[in-house]
Amino acid sequence: MTYTLILLRHGNSEWNQKNLFTGWVDVDLSDQGRAEATRAGELLAESGILPDIQYTSVLKRAIHTADIALAGADRDWIDVKRSWRLNERHYGALQGLDKAETLEKYGQEQFMTWRRSFDVPPPPLSDDSEFSQANDVRYAGLGDDLPRTESLKLVIDRMLPYWESDIKPDLATGKTVLVTAHGNSLRALVKHLDGISDADIAELNIPTGIPLVYTLGDDFYPVEPAVYLDPEAAAAGAAAVANQGKK
Amino acid sequence: MTYTLILLRHGNSEWNQKNLFTGWVDVDLSDQGRAEATRAGELLAESGILPDIQYTSVLKRAIHTADIALAGADRDWIDVKRSWRLNERHYGALQGLDKAETLEKYGQEQFMTWRRSFDVPPPPLSDDSEFSQANDVRYAGLGDDLPRTESLKLVIDRMLPYWESDIKPDLATGKTVLVTAHGNSLRALVKHLDGISDADIAELNIPTGIPLVYTLGDDFYPVEPAVYLDPEAAAAGAAAVANQGKK
Repeated sequence: MTYTLILLRHGNSEWNQKNLFTGWVDVDLSDQGRAEATRAGELLAESGILPDIQYTSVLKRAIHTADIALAGADRDWIDVKRSWRLNERHYGALQGLDKAETLEKYGQEQFMTWRRSFDVPPPPLSDDSEFSQANDVRYAGLGDDLPRTESLKLVIDRMLPYWESDIKPDLATGKTVLVTAHGNSLRALVKHLDGISDADIAELNIPTGIPLVYTLGDDFYPVEPAVYLDPEAAAAGAAAVANQGKK
Repeated sequence: MTYTLILLRHGNSEWNQKNLFTGWVDVDLSDQGRAEATRAGELLAESGILPDIQYTSVLKRAIHTADIALAGADRDWIDVKRSWRLNERHYGALQGLDKAETLEKYGQEQFMTWRRSFDVPPPPLSDDSEFSQANDVRYAGLGDDLPRTESLKLVIDRMLPYWESDIKPDLATGKTVLVTAHGNSLRALVKHLDGISDADIAELNIPTGIPLVYTLGDDFYPVEPAVYLDPEAAAAGAAAVANQGKK
C-alpha cells in the first residue's frame, strides 16, 4: 500500500511583487499568482493525480491558490481543512519591511541569517504593529501559541503535530491529500519527509505553483523521490526563489 | 444560549440563464450569479454576523457562491464541509430540459406538479443520459443512495440526517454556521425549522444571494422569525423565483 501526497506552494502575491516580507500578513495573490494557480490546476488535471481532500493554511494567498487550482481540475467539491499550523513562517519585526532595503541596511550576513538560519528567528513583532496578528479573530483561540516571530525550527515544531494529528490519518484512509501552503511550512514538511539535515535545508527552494507529488509507504515516508508535475518549470522556479530579495 | 445559523441560496447559474432544469448537473455561476455572491458577502460584512464554519453542497454553483461571499467578508479562512446531502433536488428526466418548452409540452398542471408537488417526483433519469451522475466520481461511494429523481419529500429524507449528524453538533459548540446550498435543499431545512406543512411549503420561495439568519434556541428551533439581511431585496427576489419558468 502506498499513499499519495501533493504539495503546492502558493503563487506570486501582492507583497511578493512589492518585495516586502509577508509572513503572517494576509495579502492576496497578484494576477501573476492567480495565473500560476490556474497552471497548477491544469497540471493536476493533465496528470490525473487528483486530491480527495485538501488542506490549506488560513492565509488567503494559499486558500485562493487552492480554490483556483481545484476549480480548474474540476475538483472543488472535495472537503477542506485549514489550519494556522500550515501558515508561512512568522517573520517577526521584518513583516512589512522591504527586502532590498533590509538587505542594504543590515548587510548580506544578517539578512541571510534571518532568511535562512535554521533556528535564529528575526526580532519579535510588537503587538502594537499594524502587521501584528495579536488581535486577529482567526487566531483568538491560540493564546500563548500565537507566534511573534519564528525560525524554521519553530515552524517545524508547530507544523509536525498537525501532520501527525490530521494529514497522516487522512492519508491512512487511502485518500490523496493536497496541501496548499507556503515556502517555509512546505520546507518544514519536505525536511521531515526527505530527512534533510538542519544544515542542508537552507539550500532547498520550493518553486511556486507547481504540484509536487510524493508517494509514501506504510511508514509515511517516501518510497521514491518526489516528482514535480512540471520538472523543467520547477527547476527554473526554484532558482528564481533562491534569488529572491537580491537586487 | 442561542445559536446562529445563516442560510444562503446560490445565485444565477449558466442554466438559470438558459432556463433549463438543472438539479444535480454541475453548472457554474453566471456573471450575474457571481455579482449576487459578491453582494451576499457585503451583506455579511455589513451585518457583522460572520460564520465560524461553512457548509456547501458538492455542486460548484453553491461552492463558488460561498467562496466569493466569504472572500468578500474576509472570512475565507474558516473550515469547510461539503455534502451531496445539501445538493439541489435531483430533477430526474427533466434535467437538461428547457423549462418553458416543458411547460408548453406537458401543460401547467403537470409542470407545477413536478415543480411543486411535495411527494411526486419527475420520471427517473436514465443512467445513460448525458445529464446522469451515475458515473460521477464524487458520488462513487453512494451506491444505492444515488438518486435518479427526487421529490421535495425525498430531499428532506436525505438532508435531515445531515442536519442532525453534522450541522447541529457544530452549532452546539457555539459556532455560527453558514449553509450555502440550493432552492430545494434550503426549502427542506426551512420547512423543518419553521414547522411548515407539506401543503404550505409549495408556496415558499427562497430568494437567491441574500443571507437568511436564524436564531435558534436550545432545541435548535427558531426563537424568533428568521431575518433576511436585505428584506426588500428578499421580497423582490422571492417573487422573481415564483415566476421562474413562466414565459
